[in-house]
Amino acid sequence: LPKPPPITLTTDFGPDSPYVAAMKGVILSRNPGVRLVDLTHGIPAQDIRHGAIVLDDVTPWFPPGTIHVAVVDPGVGSDRKLIYARIGAQQYLAPDNGLLSRLARRQAPSTIIHIARPQYWFPVVSKTFHGRDILAPVAAHLSLGLAPEALGERLAELLTLDWVEAVVTRGKIEGKIELIDSFGNLISNITADQLVDVPRGEEVTVECDEHQTQGIFATYSDQPEMTLIALIGSSGKLELAIVGESAAIMLGVRAGTPIEVRWPTG
Amino acid sequence: LPKPPPITLTTDFGPDSPYVAAMKGVILSRNPGVRLVDLTHGIPAQDIRHGAIVLDDVTPWFPPGTIHVAVVDPGVGSDRKLIYARIGAQQYLAPDNGLLSRLARRQAPSTIIHIARPQYWFPVVSKTFHGRDILAPVAAHLSLGLAPEALGERLAELLTLDWVEAVVTRGKIEGKIELIDSFGNLISNITADQLVDVPRGEEVTVECDEHQTQGIFATYSDQPEMTLIALIGSSGKLELAIVGESAAIMLGVRAGTPIEVRWPTG
Amino acid sequence: LPKPPPITLTTDFGPDSPYVAAMKGVILSRNPGVRLVDLTHGIPAQDIRHGAIVLDDVTPWFPPGTIHVAVVDPGVGSDRKLIYARIGAQQYLAPDNGLLSRLARRQAPSTIIHIARPQYWFPVVSKTFHGRDILAPVAAHLSLGLAPEALGERLAELLTLDWVEAVVTRGKIEGKIELIDSFGNLISNITADQLVDVPRGEEVTVECDEHQTQGIFATYSDQPEMTLIALIGSSGKLELAIVGESAAIMLGVRAGTPIEVRWPTG
Repeated sequence: LPKPPPITLTTDFGPDSPYVAAMKGVILSRNPGVRLVDLTHGIPAQDIRHGAIVLDDVTPWFPPGTIHVAVVDPGVGSDRKLIYARIGAQQYLAPDNGLLSRLARRQAPSTIIHIARPQYWFPVVSKTFHGRDILAPVAAHLSLGLAPEALGERLAELLTLDWVEAVVTRGKIEGKIELIDSFGNLISNITADQLVDVPRGEEVTVECDEHQTQGIFATYSDQPEMTLIALIGSSGKLELAIVGESAAIMLGVRAGTPIEVRWPTG
Repeated sequence: LPKPPPITLTTDFGPDSPYVAAMKGVILSRNPGVRLVDLTHGIPAQDIRHGAIVLDDVTPWFPPGTIHVAVVDPGVGSDRKLIYARIGAQQYLAPDNGLLSRLARRQAPSTIIHIARPQYWFPVVSKTFHGRDILAPVAAHLSLGLAPEALGERLAELLTLDWVEAVVTRGKIEGKIELIDSFGNLISNITADQLVDVPRGEEVTVECDEHQTQGIFATYSDQPEMTLIALIGSSGKLELAIVGESAAIMLGVRAGTPIEVRWPTG
Repeated sequence: LPKPPPITLTTDFGPDSPYVAAMKGVILSRNPGVRLVDLTHGIPAQDIRHGAIVLDDVTPWFPPGTIHVAVVDPGVGSDRKLIYARIGAQQYLAPDNGLLSRLARRQAPSTIIHIARPQYWFPVVSKTFHGRDILAPVAAHLSLGLAPEALGERLAELLTLDWVEAVVTRGKIEGKIELIDSFGNLISNITADQLVDVPRGEEVTVECDEHQTQGIFATYSDQPEMTLIALIGSSGKLELAIVGESAAIMLGVRAGTPIEVRWPTG
């Protein structure tokens, strides 16, 4: 394991936010040797679901023991809890508002702790920026070897959001668009596993908001520019793309839109 | 103290600018072991006042000895000086155009030095990018232990801008909006200190450009979505926010707009 | 030389893309001690020429031995090759689609290798994200000391794009705008070398898309706000700028537009 483990930062503060820099300053003031990685600061403002999907897609690629600090926190200053969770080999610090619930659906957390003991926080805690004043110093302490149990009492479970899985029936899978990436690709909740037995050729139809395409392709380069195609993307989910363009802009499709895969059965 | 101290970079080059990467390459070529932190590259182009406020808000969160390189430099190539300044426990490298004057208002610099000796610069200096050709190599040398006095002669003072403080009178504080953050919150120059004796309830009115709200709240979550609220934000200043939205966009308010707090006096 | 050498990342994934973070996680999982630097993720989507110019402008500023990973890869999943190249003192990993051809025009690669041996890749390779699944783990292995020859067979040459140089004739240089930077400056393919014998005063005319200006200046600060000026920019090429504004927006000029320098000859 790397010693100290890296700390990643995920927020909805927007690109180049000085608020992120303040969090880094707080961490480095306590552990000058720790490595900091920006996971993303481009989560749409206060969009907990978007943040939860990104954390689920990306954090498993990091070294075991990595400490992931996530701040999408519309309830800052209310009575929502801050928590530490260990899920698989990764560690997380976040508000208990559902941000970690997509990860927890995949694998139950082995440890959840209520961050409640102020001795590991910044001495003066603002009401509006717990990322800087609580989570950043706590992450620094953990990276220096503090046992998570020192942060507060154990919790039995974390707050969960409603995560709808795509539904497979005979000749049909019904899912929805969950995320739009920076290329404008429409990423659904239909997984590669669910598509294992589905044909990939012209006989399969993928339909989303009145837009239809035939076939499920392997790569973007399989079709000419400006063609709408369905493919299994890099996070292992069915996505709709327009070759060389933004499908989100050209089709006007938003997160939440239903998507359907249909094929003839014998 | 961390050895070597970290180097932060603050510019108006915009997100993901390759110019920033060139500065990092220059620094790493001279000190491969130094830690680099992006403070922000999102200062609006050539907006020295905005840069000065961000440096004042964020740099004090960094470890003592940190070297902050700031490049908002509309006068590059003119006769404006480049300077080193030590202010409090932090070190700064910047053009002498007012960028450091907000920090200096809080605490007088203990050292100011005119960066004038080319032996610590890149051998060929362009006329348009002193950040890369002068400040980056100078920062690397400082991080390796060079004494700031080696850079040039001492200066008595740095160039200052006009920083207007909010004015407190009986039953009223008159300030202005100084900064708009990435959430669209309108951040004023009215400080928490100035608000200590001001009531927080319905009897206090905050008015900005014909928009009014009652009360000063502790957190964004104290009010329903779409409500205009006044609160003391994470940098210790009064700000106006619209819960869940961008106040800057919805109200059309820009930096420089007056803001007033009024309350009944006995 | 730094040990291990730093790894830089250049992509068209856009600011704050979680896909970049996944690449970083993969690299750190294999070499926790390596330094990662974002060169830029702001290459316009699938714009290989833009990426090639940025790599040529910026990578020479990095320490010798630096490993530059570049992912602008519209052909991912097709039969385009992935390559390692050593060009000058720098090392590159990229698709063989012309991304490195601007660098190669300046100096022929001393080594080109076809990345073909899967033992250094992620065990499961997606069809859509070879940056994460192949180039990132290969970069980590190289940074740990793997010889590039272990990656696959040598190639004789890399794919080149058509790079047009500006043409100098008596009293005239004809070039084109190649790149628009984040300030909206219009950067041409006319080099400082080509301008050595050209006068700099009022007698020289620079014309681009019906817009004209007289003289070639040393810095942005030589003229008042809102003035169109020509100057030799920080990457050593002639550029057009509007002082304090975006020339690209105000003039409506795009990459590819011809630019001409004319002067009277005796």
